[in-house]
Amino acid sequence: MPAIFDPEADILSGDTADVYFIRAQEILRQEDLNPVVTMEVFTSREGLLCGMEEVLALLRRVLPSESHVWALREGDTMTAKEVVLRITGPYGAFGLYETAFLGMLAHQSGWATAARECVHASGGIPIISFGARHVHPRVAAQLEYAALVGGFAGCATPAGARLGDVSPTGTIPHAMILIFGDTVEAIRAFDRHISPQVNRVALVDTFKDEAEESLRVAAALGDRLWGVRLDTPGERGRVTPDLVKEVRARLDQAGYDHVKIVVSGGMDAERIRLFVERGSPVDAFGVGSAVSSAPPIDFTGDIKAIEGKPVAKRGRIPGITENQRLRKIDLSPD
Amino acid sequence: MPAIFDPEADILSGDTADVYFIRAQEILRQEDLNPVVTMEVFTSREGLLCGMEEVLALLRRVLPSESHVWALREGDTMTAKEVVLRITGPYGAFGLYETAFLGMLAHQSGWATAARECVHASGGIPIISFGARHVHPRVAAQLEYAALVGGFAGCATPAGARLGDVSPTGTIPHAMILIFGDTVEAIRAFDRHISPQVNRVALVDTFKDEAEESLRVAAALGDRLWGVRLDTPGERGRVTPDLVKEVRARLDQAGYDHVKIVVSGGMDAERIRLFVERGSPVDAFGVGSAVSSAPPIDFTGDIKAIEGKPVAKRGRIPGITENQRLRKIDLSPD
Amino acid sequence: MPAIFDPEADILSGDTADVYFIRAQEILRQEDLNPVVTMEVFTSREGLLCGMEEVLALLRRVLPSESHVWALREGDTMTAKEVVLRITGPYGAFGLYETAFLGMLAHQSGWATAARECVHASGGIPIISFGARHVHPRVAAQLEYAALVGGFAGCATPAGARLGDVSPTGTIPHAMILIFGDTVEAIRAFDRHISPQVNRVALVDTFKDEAEESLRVAAALGDRLWGVRLDTPGERGRVTPDLVKEVRARLDQAGYDHVKIVVSGGMDAERIRLFVERGSPVDAFGVGSAVSSAPPIDFTGDIKAIEGKPVAKRGRIPGITENQRLRKIDLSPD
Amino acid sequence: MPAIFDPEADILSGDTADVYFIRAQEILRQEDLNPVVTMEVFTSREGLLCGMEEVLALLRRVLPSESHVWALREGDTMTAKEVVLRITGPYGAFGLYETAFLGMLAHQSGWATAARECVHASGGIPIISFGARHVHPRVAAQLEYAALVGGFAGCATPAGARLGDVSPTGTIPHAMILIFGDTVEAIRAFDRHISPQVNRVALVDTFKDEAEESLRVAAALGDRLWGVRLDTPGERGRVTPDLVKEVRARLDQAGYDHVKIVVSGGMDAERIRLFVERGSPVDAFGVGSAVSSAPPIDFTGDIKAIEGKPVAKRGRIPGITENQRLRKIDLSPD
Amino acid sequence: MPAIFDPEADILSGDTADVYFIRAQEILRQEDLNPVVTMEVFTSREGLLCGMEEVLALLRRVLPSESHVWALREGDTMTAKEVVLRITGPYGAFGLYETAFLGMLAHQSGWATAARECVHASGGIPIISFGARHVHPRVAAQLEYAALVGGFAGCATPAGARLGDVSPTGTIPHAMILIFGDTVEAIRAFDRHISPQVNRVALVDTFKDEAEESLRVAAALGDRLWGVRLDTPGERGRVTPDLVKEVRARLDQAGYDHVKIVVSGGMDAERIRLFVERGSPVDAFGVGSAVSSAPPIDFTGDIKAIEGKPVAKRGRIPGITENQRLRKIDLSPD
Amino acid sequence: MPAIFDPEADILSGDTADVYFIRAQEILRQEDLNPVVTMEVFTSREGLLCGMEEVLALLRRVLPSESHVWALREGDTMTAKEVVLRITGPYGAFGLYETAFLGMLAHQSGWATAARECVHASGGIPIISFGARHVHPRVAAQLEYAALVGGFAGCATPAGARLGDVSPTGTIPHAMILIFGDTVEAIRAFDRHISPQVNRVALVDTFKDEAEESLRVAAALGDRLWGVRLDTPGERGRVTPDLVKEVRARLDQAGYDHVKIVVSGGMDAERIRLFVERGSPVDAFGVGSAVSSAPPIDFTGDIKAIEGKPVAKRGRIPGITENQRLRKIDLSPD
Repeated sequence: MPAIFDPEADILSGDTADVYFIRAQEILRQEDLNPVVTMEVFTSREGLLCGMEEVLALLRRVLPSESHVWALREGDTMTAKEVVLRITGPYGAFGLYETAFLGMLAHQSGWATAARECVHASGGIPIISFGARHVHPRVAAQLEYAALVGGFAGCATPAGARLGDVSPTGTIPHAMILIFGDTVEAIRAFDRHISPQVNRVALVDTFKDEAEESLRVAAALGDRLWGVRLDTPGERGRVTPDLVKEVRARLDQAGYDHVKIVVSGGMDAERIRLFVERGSPVDAFGVGSAVSSAPPIDFTGDIKAIEGKPVAKRGRIPGITENQRLRKIDLSPD
Repeated sequence: MPAIFDPEADILSGDTADVYFIRAQEILRQEDLNPVVTMEVFTSREGLLCGMEEVLALLRRVLPSESHVWALREGDTMTAKEVVLRITGPYGAFGLYETAFLGMLAHQSGWATAARECVHASGGIPIISFGARHVHPRVAAQLEYAALVGGFAGCATPAGARLGDVSPTGTIPHAMILIFGDTVEAIRAFDRHISPQVNRVALVDTFKDEAEESLRVAAALGDRLWGVRLDTPGERGRVTPDLVKEVRARLDQAGYDHVKIVVSGGMDAERIRLFVERGSPVDAFGVGSAVSSAPPIDFTGDIKAIEGKPVAKRGRIPGITENQRLRKIDLSPD
Repeated sequence: MPAIFDPEADILSGDTADVYFIRAQEILRQEDLNPVVTMEVFTSREGLLCGMEEVLALLRRVLPSESHVWALREGDTMTAKEVVLRITGPYGAFGLYETAFLGMLAHQSGWATAARECVHASGGIPIISFGARHVHPRVAAQLEYAALVGGFAGCATPAGARLGDVSPTGTIPHAMILIFGDTVEAIRAFDRHISPQVNRVALVDTFKDEAEESLRVAAALGDRLWGVRLDTPGERGRVTPDLVKEVRARLDQAGYDHVKIVVSGGMDAERIRLFVERGSPVDAFGVGSAVSSAPPIDFTGDIKAIEGKPVAKRGRIPGITENQRLRKIDLSPD
Repeated sequence: MPAIFDPEADILSGDTADVYFIRAQEILRQEDLNPVVTMEVFTSREGLLCGMEEVLALLRRVLPSESHVWALREGDTMTAKEVVLRITGPYGAFGLYETAFLGMLAHQSGWATAARECVHASGGIPIISFGARHVHPRVAAQLEYAALVGGFAGCATPAGARLGDVSPTGTIPHAMILIFGDTVEAIRAFDRHISPQVNRVALVDTFKDEAEESLRVAAALGDRLWGVRLDTPGERGRVTPDLVKEVRARLDQAGYDHVKIVVSGGMDAERIRLFVERGSPVDAFGVGSAVSSAPPIDFTGDIKAIEGKPVAKRGRIPGITENQRLRKIDLSPD
Repeated sequence: MPAIFDPEADILSGDTADVYFIRAQEILRQEDLNPVVTMEVFTSREGLLCGMEEVLALLRRVLPSESHVWALREGDTMTAKEVVLRITGPYGAFGLYETAFLGMLAHQSGWATAARECVHASGGIPIISFGARHVHPRVAAQLEYAALVGGFAGCATPAGARLGDVSPTGTIPHAMILIFGDTVEAIRAFDRHISPQVNRVALVDTFKDEAEESLRVAAALGDRLWGVRLDTPGERGRVTPDLVKEVRARLDQAGYDHVKIVVSGGMDAERIRLFVERGSPVDAFGVGSAVSSAPPIDFTGDIKAIEGKPVAKRGRIPGITENQRLRKIDLSPD
Repeated sequence: MPAIFDPEADILSGDTADVYFIRAQEILRQEDLNPVVTMEVFTSREGLLCGMEEVLALLRRVLPSESHVWALREGDTMTAKEVVLRITGPYGAFGLYETAFLGMLAHQSGWATAARECVHASGGIPIISFGARHVHPRVAAQLEYAALVGGFAGCATPAGARLGDVSPTGTIPHAMILIFGDTVEAIRAFDRHISPQVNRVALVDTFKDEAEESLRVAAALGDRLWGVRLDTPGERGRVTPDLVKEVRARLDQAGYDHVKIVVSGGMDAERIRLFVERGSPVDAFGVGSAVSSAPPIDFTGDIKAIEGKPVAKRGRIPGITENQRLRKIDLSPD
């Protein structure tokens, strides 16, 4: 999964760093102290590691060549308290970026771990990330990248899709159907103007009963219709496993076996599991909040050696922590 | 609270938008459809509204002058399902940005609501935001801004402090103390090199017992010491209300009544409440994960009228929702 | 609430009595024992008393004129362990009927108590009994009578309505709509053939979206339409408070303010309370299982005096239990 | 288990039917509509099917000979949502009886299912139905019949016993013992006057300690005593597993090994299980409320085909539901 | 409440002290260290203080006259962490007894606190301590003394009664009734041989039904019978509130209003509250395990000053803790 | 485990007996009744039997030689309701001591059972009893004896150690360290004056950080230091599994592998299990309250035969209870 990350100016300047790291840099410079230290970064709890590629891109920019870095791979599972990153280098070169690299790992590992839980629940049915609208647009791409690292099959934004090296996925927004005033008119317009490479998927809960509308759009587009999406709102009882079964049965009875069914709206691992257990014939799930609402997984960075001598603050064990899973990183530019 | 937000290029380009909004724009343009619509944005649950200033900055950039916008104020409380924003304008001008403005509100309102809960628990004791390390550095400033909107007294990053128009706050990182090899040496160096405007706050749990170290740094800096910070790790039982009482008593008995005590490390609303109920003499709390781990508050945008005619998708009530709390927004540039 | 009950042959014959009462009668007759005894009947738990009219009709048939009976009134509340009936008469005249009169009280008080709980929850919105299909047809009328005693405004079966002195209430079964193939055709046929005294209430969840169908039937019958009934099945998420609000809003916006909304399908006290708390504009509820599934309230009969001398079995207190709420019953035929 | 059911006049007249079925019949007749339809009846939850014999007796009375019926057997287990009955025939012939046949199944399946749960708990120890006093006498026989279908060994009323083709079972009521003034006198009178075919079972908790009284009645009747019944009321701590052990031990030590022990009073599956797990030497249980308080199991009837064409209301799948367990019913008179 | 305590030889010798106190005495003597220290003793949780009289008797034996002691009173309530005892004196005089005086307070305060909870529950109905059989006979007297300090009205052992300056209370053991073979014979023998000062209380659950036996003993002793005791074992469902009501009613109906009812057997605060709430006419409760099973309330002794200078170990605040409730103790011999 | 118990005067005199046993003795003597009876003692719940040696020492003193006693062994497990002791002898010889022997078993079995639970949790790591301070000094030795019977490896008081035939164990009290003013000075004084047979164990949480102090005392005593004890108070977060790991690591890194670590302070079975599961390198646990706060296990004595004839009070089964695990006791003096 090739991913190109490029650290931004305000990260490199320390503008988004905790100010005490900025002051520490200044003091140490004034005191002419710049020892080679070993810092270890460990996770607070088990999960799926994500954000490491972006962290390594940052470290490659700032670390002098004589430094050494060991890390787990993007997408590796991690156990509670496991060391996922070890840096040996002059403190003055990377101390300022502790806030940044902890944050990259924390936010993205939280999302990727939640995504993986949905993937485990779906038993092979593909899942698309629909969560961009629940996070700040500055991290929408990172959210979707993390969902892909967690095993999702696709995502909705071009920026996220680019990070994950896939094509973005989408149907038709309710707004457009409302403007056309009829679902069939809207899907016909989509069919007229959008590249044939893009699947035709009709959203069928805007105006009419979902089963009735599914039959109408299938009749209108015939074989060109790839699928329908059910997104029934909570006010109408959300999508239920039985609704999918019924729509499937009515489509099949009318000869539209080729039309797939996409389900979205408040889907999380528990609800996905319910659909799977009930044998509901879903072809793909759309998942948003279940990933975007996942709390970050906190990481901690500890100095464990200074000029080769084991040290640690109270509460931690001095010296390097053994972890055979760490692999040595090549710090030369990508 | 003056805050200056400027939408970035990848937001304005739609690169972080859900792709179906991009396609909808293209289809409607091809069909020559660009009706004036009214969209309402409502919140999924109660909380503190945050992110509206950034949303309005975006809308001012994209909406034509004949548009109309009504909104709640930054920092307003909102009830479940309340409409917080209403836009009337040509759909082609703003439909593309639905992903972005929902996300701005979602992420920041989630953080601000969590911050407010801590503020309610602390009963007037000031709280500083220490959460930047738990979120992606691209949104670290937004996190800290939201904490300030939620009532925090300060924050740790220069970028966040600038959005909130305050000065950044910080003590000394454990790393620097480890490099100096002694807490007293480290605070003395801080005192030598850092501007006298900045408070001297010693972190006292690195090498020695917190009470012993507090007396040592107080003896070293005398009246120039503003306070000590207790950040005892979980491996050592975290900071307890009784530890603060004991450190306070030992400082007072030694004549250091002027030295304040800052408490950090896993503090959340429940734990802050415990300290307050036990009468623990804390002068300030540092809070990180309790804000950064708050889930976003999901928002939804609905088309409720097209060319003045009430419409709505199934499950929603057509037409404008009355809300006297909305105020008309001046769309002219700030 | 005039109600006419007439004990049936198999009750009078003892065929439905516990056989030990039949044998006891035979033994006592053989032993020439027929003392005047006082029996008290008490309830196992609090609730609404129902069935007493039927019990008194039975006692009037079997007790000799010199007997005495005290009882609470039909529809009275009763506290746990309260004596609701006291009979003084020759044991040989009524001992055989203990099974019958305990059963009449038990089953009907259970139903009436459950009905009352729904009535308390509905805050004045009328409720119709739809539970006949969940009980054996031999007691369908008793169930509906008990629901009326508990405060329901109407019921569905002619037999139940007759006991409660009201007219039966009903809309159109799904089966008939399926046979007509269209809801509008079905309600038009109803309108053609059924007496104008009967309200026209269209069931609107058979073929199409409820809101869409409501507007269609309103357009078809105009002012002659009394109301619509929402009975959305669980497979489609049941009726929700929001669905009622939306149908109300769409009917009103189309000028059909006069059309009422009846809600049914799995309604019980808890769910009724939810609709009321959410301000859902329901005009009437239909309730079935919530009453029919109520467990009977067990009653116990105890001999407390024999020929005026206090007696009791172990565990009970000999002699008459004071209860000022009991009123003396006139045993002369109705 | 031969059982003879005969539908009553008020069921055949539709007097206990939901009035909308009556009106639907009238409308369809006026419109000259009487299609051949297929109706399927399914259960809301798993349980033991009971009432089917009575339903088939009704259908045989009303269906024309060209109709077809498939059904599960009386006493079959059913899974949630399983179709238990399928009728194909002219709607005008049986639509009126939907209320009745659903109610027959609902009430009796609820009772039979609860009875079976007690039977599973008792591990082979026979159980007698004592619940007639907790239901309306019009369905006392149906209750006891259902308990027998659920696996009970006997029941208390002649009417119930006749339906189940067994002899009714009973001991001596407390009332009769109180009239005799002594348990020994009462059981002696029973012994004098009741047919030797009937077991002599003495109720031993009326006046004296149960163990003491058991020894007295055993001494009085000797080998003619079949057993004793313990029915200690809640005011005296109910029957406990240890009480049974003690009475058994004292009877055995006095040479009355032949005397059996029957236990009653608030026995349900959980409590029966407790006695069995504790190894309490019970010879038979008497169970009442545990069966009579069981909620009915709701059934639903759906039209699934009209004149051979699959149909269904929204939420259901059109057409016949496959169920290999259904067997074709011979509709010729019994 | 005069109580005379005399420390025993093995306590004074240190034989029951933790050995490290013995060794500390030896080391300090060898080092010629015997400073005047202030020790404070505080409770781990709230409760009723008991054992202080015994502690003070010990301190009077060992402290030199220039020492100072402050303490709460026997029977005082104490809040969590409250200082209940402060000793200023030469450490060598009392350090050895820390194990002993903490233990005296811990065990007895635990019992007294549990007793008080029962007293609060009983609403004025007197309670007798029956718990001696559940503790080692070496502390049976201390247990009963603590129960009296907690508010009990009497106790069962002469040794305990002497400490509490009351007369011991008792009825007749089951063993004696079994030996006599009849409850009436046993109570008659009691009446013949025991001083008339002692109340005649018959235990009535040994052979026969409690109500029946109560009437028999009342008839046998007439006015000389003070009361009956109900102690029904768990195998017979324990004593219930209703059993007391029934026995009361049957005694009253037979003219024995003067006979009191004592209830025992598994009574604790919760169960006492149940009897009181149900209005059960109990004249006295007997309580055993509810007091004897109470866990000790742990106390801690801390050196807070040495030769007048505040000190404390880590975790505690140096110097004397203010507590206005402490009163100065006269150390001269009683 | 040889243990010598000698009944005390106030037990032999009956002064600590329930007074009704004293009175019963007097009545029976007056009536010239002294039958040979069989009494059985059974436990209320499962646990570890302790106190039997002391009971048998008492019975040997009071029973005439023609008596018979069967008992389980000290330290045997017992199941709920199991008979642990059977005495056949003249009632007048032992009836008076029922309170005493039940109490000996109750208190000590409660403690031993709790101790065994800790032993099961510790997985082979030795445990020392530190609970004497939480019980009355009159039973401190019995508590520690019971802990040893339950599997503890040592105890703190000389009296307890003598009963269990071990040497007492202890470190240094906080009080002595406070008097010396420095932990190193205190352990040096211990080392000077206490027999070399006694292990040197330094308590390291009095003044300084535990890790820092451990290194200081190890440097001071070198190879003569046996171990350190961590007893961090709750105000400082108690001892945690991680603290032990850290102290172990820092000791090892400094070359003090021989120094053992003892952990105390609020340790109970659950907390011991936590340390074991986390792999915390503890060498010994000190346990106090977890044993001393265990409730007594109540025992009951029942007369089951009189002069060879089976009897029992209501609720119990007359005659001897079979128990093959009981062994015949030799009543001749030890």
